Order: sequence, then C-alpha cells, then structure tokens
Amino acid sequence: MKNMGLARLILVSPKQDHLSEEARMMATSARDVLEGAEIFPNLYEALKGFRWIAGTSGRKGRNRGPFIQPRDICPEILTHAQSVPVAVLFGPEDKGLTNEELAPCHALIAIPTHEGLRSLNLAQAVMVFCYELFVASLGLSEKEGDPSTRAVKPAEFKKIEGMYAHLEELLSKIGFLDPNNPKRIMHTLRRIFGRAGLADRDVAILRGIFRQLEWYATKRDPKDP
Amino acid sequence: MKNMGLARLILVSPKQDHLSEEARMMATSARDVLEGAEIFPNLYEALKGFRWIAGTSGRKGRNRGPFIQPRDICPEILTHAQSVPVAVLFGPEDKGLTNEELAPCHALIAIPTHEGLRSLNLAQAVMVFCYELFVASLGLSEKEGDPSTRAVKPAEFKKIEGMYAHLEELLSKIGFLDPNNPKRIMHTLRRIFGRAGLADRDVAILRGIFRQLEWYATKRDPKDP
Repeated sequence: MKNMGLARLILVSPKQDHLSEEARMMATSARDVLEGAEIFPNLYEALKGFRWIAGTSGRKGRNRGPFIQPRDICPEILTHAQSVPVAVLFGPEDKGLTNEELAPCHALIAIPTHEGLRSLNLAQAVMVFCYELFVASLGLSEKEGDPSTRAVKPAEFKKIEGMYAHLEELLSKIGFLDPNNPKRIMHTLRRIFGRAGLADRDVAILRGIFRQLEWYATKRDPKDP
Repeated sequence: MKNMGLARLILVSPKQDHLSEEARMMATSARDVLEGAEIFPNLYEALKGFRWIAGTSGRKGRNRGPFIQPRDICPEILTHAQSVPVAVLFGPEDKGLTNEELAPCHALIAIPTHEGLRSLNLAQAVMVFCYELFVASLGLSEKEGDPSTRAVKPAEFKKIEGMYAHLEELLSKIGFLDPNNPKRIMHTLRRIFGRAGLADRDVAILRGIFRQLEWYATKRDPKDP
C-alpha cells in the first residue's frame, strides 16, 4: 500500500492481533500504515463513511459480476476519489468476499490470472490493485511521474549526425569501409546506435573514443607494415 | 509466477534450501514451480543459455538506467521471447542487483513506486512484473504479434560478453579507460549497446572494427609523438 502511495488501512474483525510483534516486523518501513489501521467489528460499520465502494473477487461465479479489470476501473476510482470517500474491499485469505459482502459494491474488480492457477494470495492481489491505482494516478497527473524512470532524453539530431560523420571518417581512415559501398556498414552502425537512443552524454563519450582512435589512425599509414 | 502463466524459475546461489518444508508450504499450489527450479552457482552460468536479458532495480542511481517501466517494456519482452530465450533478473531481497550484475542486461526495468516508500519487497516486485507481462500477453494474442514490430534476434550472451572484453582491451590499449576506474566508461558503453540489442551480425561487424583499430593501437606507442 505504502509503496503505491496509499495510507488508510481498515481491518474488519481481524482474526489475529494486527499489532503483534510478527506483524510489525513484516510491515518493515510501512509500520506507520499498520499502526494507523482502523479496526471495525463488521463490514457495515467499516463502510458507513464511504460513498463509492468497489469489491474484489477471484471467484467469478454465475451470479457474480460483471467483473472489471483493475486497469479499466482505476481511472474511474480516482475520479470518484476526487469528490467522495472511496473504499476498495479485499476478502480474507482463505475464501474471499461472499456475495453478501460484495452486495454494497458499486463495481466488482477481478485481476486477470492464468488458468493454471487462478487464485491470488491476498497480499499479491492487494499489491497488483494498488500498483494499478498508482500507475493510473500518474497518468492522471499528466505523466509527470517519476523523473528517473523517464527514457533517455535523446541527443539533438545535429549532434548525432556529427557523430556519424566523425565515425564514417574514422572507419574510412582505417580502411574498414568498402569504397564501392561505404554506406553499408554505416547503415548497420546507424541502426545499432539508433535503437540505443543516444543521449548527449553517450555522444560525448563515443566522440571521445573516436578522437583517440583517430589519433592512432592518422599517424600511421595502414599500408605501412 | 504461476498465477501469471510463468513456469521457469532459476535461482542463483540461494542462501537457504529452496525445497525446505517452509518453502514448500509457502508455495501452496505453485509447488511444481518451486520443485522444478533450476539452481546455478553464479549469474554467468545461469545466463549462459539466454539471448535477451532484462534486469530489475529499485535503486535508480546516477550511473544506472535508463529505466523502463514494466508496462512499456513487456510487449518487447514478449516479442523477443517468441524467438529467443529471455531472462528477467531480480536481485536478492536485502540489496538488489549490483551494477556488475546488471551489466549484461539489454534493458533495465523499474517498477514505479511512491516517493513515500520507494523499495518494494522482492516477492511484490516479481508479482507486479509477472502481472504486467501476463496482461501484455493477453493484448499480444489479440494483435497476433505484428511482424513489422519484431525486434532483432539478439546475439548469444557469451558472444556479447566476448565483444565487451575485446572492446575493453582496445580502449585500455589506447589509454581511454581510467586505470583507477576502468568500469565507468565500459558501463556506459554496455548501456548503449544493451539498449540497442545486438544481433550476431552486429557483433561480427563491431568486432571487425575493433580488430582493425587494435592493429593501429598495438603497432604504435601512445607516448610516441
């Protein structure tokens, strides 16, 4: 939850002490979320203050559904959350939410899983849902997102072309390019560096290498043994 | 993993017995995945048979990256997996993968997390990644894999590593590598070529260039004016 920017945890009639030594240890850096958890004796009391509720289920029985995938429902959840208190229910580990418990829900959510093993652990289901909600929230804030996960900022066209010209000159000097078809090798090298998507720093390092190599290539005639 | 349709688990030098009573119990319905796990003494041995490798990291240090989000990289991973063996690396729980361990990777993956708690548990990171891969595979089977977007067939791990060793030797000969920190430049070059995803033919051309350049570099002492 905390990894995905969520802070409010509500536990309904927990079977074990949620503040036990083991639970605190498992919470590690999210101990604040655990210690701030609100406890209610039943679902009705827990949901009283909410205005929009979604329920999750792994069992898509005949009288259940329609189920929506997290990716499709999360934008709607975020929109609701801007104006009203929103709750998302997860069932107990062993049997999930009953039809009765799902009844107050505005929407039912099912996480897609492989037919080889349909049922997710509770912790994993919560993780996937919170992740989808967080990613959807990044989309809402116009993908400002996390700057460090942004792709490399590509170097300017002119800089890249200058680098290729430099590389072609070097390869020509060392006799690596076929004089009848010098572009063939350059084309392959352009494809390689093109796929890599060079940033300014990459271009600077490569040109540094080319300059150093050029020094060797110009001082020495290749025909000279 | 099994929830998301994945079956092949490789463990590198595990600290504990992966088939202990506790591990078997935790695996519940995915015991077959656990019992089928392959064990290798080191990462090099584990990766030998793979041709395209992605690494995951929670620490986006200055010299790491660029990182790609699972949602953006998964279609590419699936495309590669149609033609070559693909591996995705996850680091140990305590400290994640080192720069050296990430070096052979063609792409680096980071799961977006909230600034309040950036670091995910290993199990949760694996879950989110496998989920994204599964959802992407659902999308792919709808589109039947567009052949025009098919990527190059990556060269073998061993070949690529051989090429890097050759390049490092060359750069060292021309005095381009800082003797105190030779890995810094190599790291940047590995990131560039890793992003490019080199095919056999690319490696052959690059090594041809390296050989030619080496000829100049070895015949001439750089201190000689």
